[in-house]
Amino acid sequence: MLLNSPRLNDAMTTYELAAIVAVAPENVLYTSGFWCLSQWIRRGPQAFVVVPASSQGEPVVITSTSTLDLVADQGVTARVRRYGGFIVDTDRSIVLDSVSTRQAELYGLLADDSAVSGLVAEIRAAGLANSRIGIDEVGLLPGDIEALKSALPEVTWVNASSVFRWVRAVKTSAEIARLKAIGEITERSISAALAIAKEGVTEFEMARVFHSHTVGEDAFPVLGCIGFGERSALPNVQPSDRALRKGDVIRFDVGGHFRNYRADIARNAYFGKPSRDIEIKYNALNEGVKRGIEHVRPGVSASEIFRVVVEAVREAGIPHYQRSHVGHGIGLDGYDFPLLSASSEDVLEDGMVLCVETPYYELGRVGLQVEDMVVVRPDGAEMLTNNGDSLVVIGQ
Amino acid sequence: MLLNSPRLNDAMTTYELAAIVAVAPENVLYTSGFWCLSQWIRRGPQAFVVVPASSQGEPVVITSTSTLDLVADQGVTARVRRYGGFIVDTDRSIVLDSVSTRQAELYGLLADDSAVSGLVAEIRAAGLANSRIGIDEVGLLPGDIEALKSALPEVTWVNASSVFRWVRAVKTSAEIARLKAIGEITERSISAALAIAKEGVTEFEMARVFHSHTVGEDAFPVLGCIGFGERSALPNVQPSDRALRKGDVIRFDVGGHFRNYRADIARNAYFGKPSRDIEIKYNALNEGVKRGIEHVRPGVSASEIFRVVVEAVREAGIPHYQRSHVGHGIGLDGYDFPLLSASSEDVLEDGMVLCVETPYYELGRVGLQVEDMVVVRPDGAEMLTNNGDSLVVIGQ
Repeated sequence: MLLNSPRLNDAMTTYELAAIVAVAPENVLYTSGFWCLSQWIRRGPQAFVVVPASSQGEPVVITSTSTLDLVADQGVTARVRRYGGFIVDTDRSIVLDSVSTRQAELYGLLADDSAVSGLVAEIRAAGLANSRIGIDEVGLLPGDIEALKSALPEVTWVNASSVFRWVRAVKTSAEIARLKAIGEITERSISAALAIAKEGVTEFEMARVFHSHTVGEDAFPVLGCIGFGERSALPNVQPSDRALRKGDVIRFDVGGHFRNYRADIARNAYFGKPSRDIEIKYNALNEGVKRGIEHVRPGVSASEIFRVVVEAVREAGIPHYQRSHVGHGIGLDGYDFPLLSASSEDVLEDGMVLCVETPYYELGRVGLQVEDMVVVRPDGAEMLTNNGDSLVVIGQ
Repeated sequence: MLLNSPRLNDAMTTYELAAIVAVAPENVLYTSGFWCLSQWIRRGPQAFVVVPASSQGEPVVITSTSTLDLVADQGVTARVRRYGGFIVDTDRSIVLDSVSTRQAELYGLLADDSAVSGLVAEIRAAGLANSRIGIDEVGLLPGDIEALKSALPEVTWVNASSVFRWVRAVKTSAEIARLKAIGEITERSISAALAIAKEGVTEFEMARVFHSHTVGEDAFPVLGCIGFGERSALPNVQPSDRALRKGDVIRFDVGGHFRNYRADIARNAYFGKPSRDIEIKYNALNEGVKRGIEHVRPGVSASEIFRVVVEAVREAGIPHYQRSHVGHGIGLDGYDFPLLSASSEDVLEDGMVLCVETPYYELGRVGLQVEDMVVVRPDGAEMLTNNGDSLVVIGQ
């Protein structure tokens, strides 16, 4: 199960919530296992999951009739409410497979008019119309909260997108397995891309090989910053027709998603013989990530990791190194909690998955960045990806 | 240019807007050409474009300092406001390339604290603090509109996401070129996938080839519904390990994006010798799309196209055929205006790009669907993709 149920229950107790409503696609997936295609590929289509406080009932998925085939095919076990219409012919004389049987059952449910009216009806039916309810406000459409307040005047609505982010910060083993998979796929995609490095190869060509490898392993492209030479210093560099030349750094800040779980790692290669300056800086950035990872342990504060990483980079070779953060959680979102910054008040917990990173940009000249994904374990960090410590040198 | 400026100006005149603010990623790209990575891959990071009414000034992009490299690299010509900090080292002794020079200039701008405070400052500076301003409300985060109302109490805010949708419905030639490109890439991706069809091949394997081909042509996967046999009847079918068998329909409802413009087309193949029933139904669905496309012309109503398509399918072999719609616009969103439905009040205009489709699902048995993309031209429809009229028969 993706959902960290005990942590969600703790949060609901803390905030005194009788129920919490998932709205954004990632929170719908997280709480119910239901991946609702339409809400992932555009903004507008809606699905909700109502999760009652523990021992007060089971989660309910509210989704459009047009998506019930996905509910059936994905074996979603939550109770379902549907809204709106959709036309599928049913011939009662044929024997249905199990997915179609479930789909037919779901079509037999009474339909609400809209997602919001379905949510209102569910809250009333569950006896929650006078309760405190957490709502994932970031996923709502304009007008939704006003409609909910008007239909359910006795409900106290509590903005709860940050509650979901807090719960999601500590991953279940099912989540960690997906994160490990996409971390490794991303590493292999980088290797595949670097394998075509030669004088004259363009960023476009390398990006094409990178993404093709990701897709070939059943993952999907998300982040694909790949820059050569002076373009490696563009923080968000998007591939261009810039051709590889001797003396170029190649910087990757990349990661796809596998079953909706994201990777975000950085690697550098040097095409030719790196200067002493590049070697020193790369090693300093790598030392920062290494020392940060060595300090990862439950109970350590995110700001402490920040301090350790920045100090290590400064001591090891970039005395003027500055950053706003040196990493972040990762999961269904590319920036999950916590943020590894100086002002963060978060504390690391067993099961968090972190990207620890030391980006460094010299405008018009070079960008270097080390970034790996680790799980916080009781005895320290378990690396999901591994930079391998030394700058990759190619084309010599 | 992606933006249909005359149409935007018309809309702003109609709604008496002194300015309109793009918020959602697609509207930011549409109005300024600025593709702001962070807002495309997660919800939270913000960029705005303020477009003043014609002859009252030039568009202004408001974006975070961390994304200014993209502004520079993409050659965005709009004036820029930045917000927030970001650390990039600058060595004044080196000669900068043109992108880095522009980036350095942008870093030199004064920074606002946040996207919203930048927007407020821009509206004040432009003398718009007492005006009617359209706001792309669907892209806002919770609290944004309250903050804007509080900071600019004399502004009359008009919800304008639907204005952007209306403007975007009529495509410029730059947009049509991208739509044609992704339509053709998607067709070739289907051909590549079908080329591996043989007994025992799984939906997963076919999907992998499909997406790999798309990525190999520098497009990105979005919609990938590929189902065999009884699974072809799942409207949103996601690939599984179902193996291909003789007598299976293979249904594709698919489309990637190329430079953010989307395709959405459907194709069917039959693995073996199709029954007379399948042939009749396929031909009826194809006849519906064909007749609909024959009627496409500026001035024809969307509801008329709906009526023609449904009637044609019924006459040609599926007398009980029913649908809620038979297509929709396509562009930066997979469902742009107009919707081809019975109740639509939209009228076709020169330059609209439409998907015309006739999906048909028999639960647990078979799904068939014809869908092509066309441009509305003065003398009729120009096909961007072409189903080719007859059911693809393979494996005989």
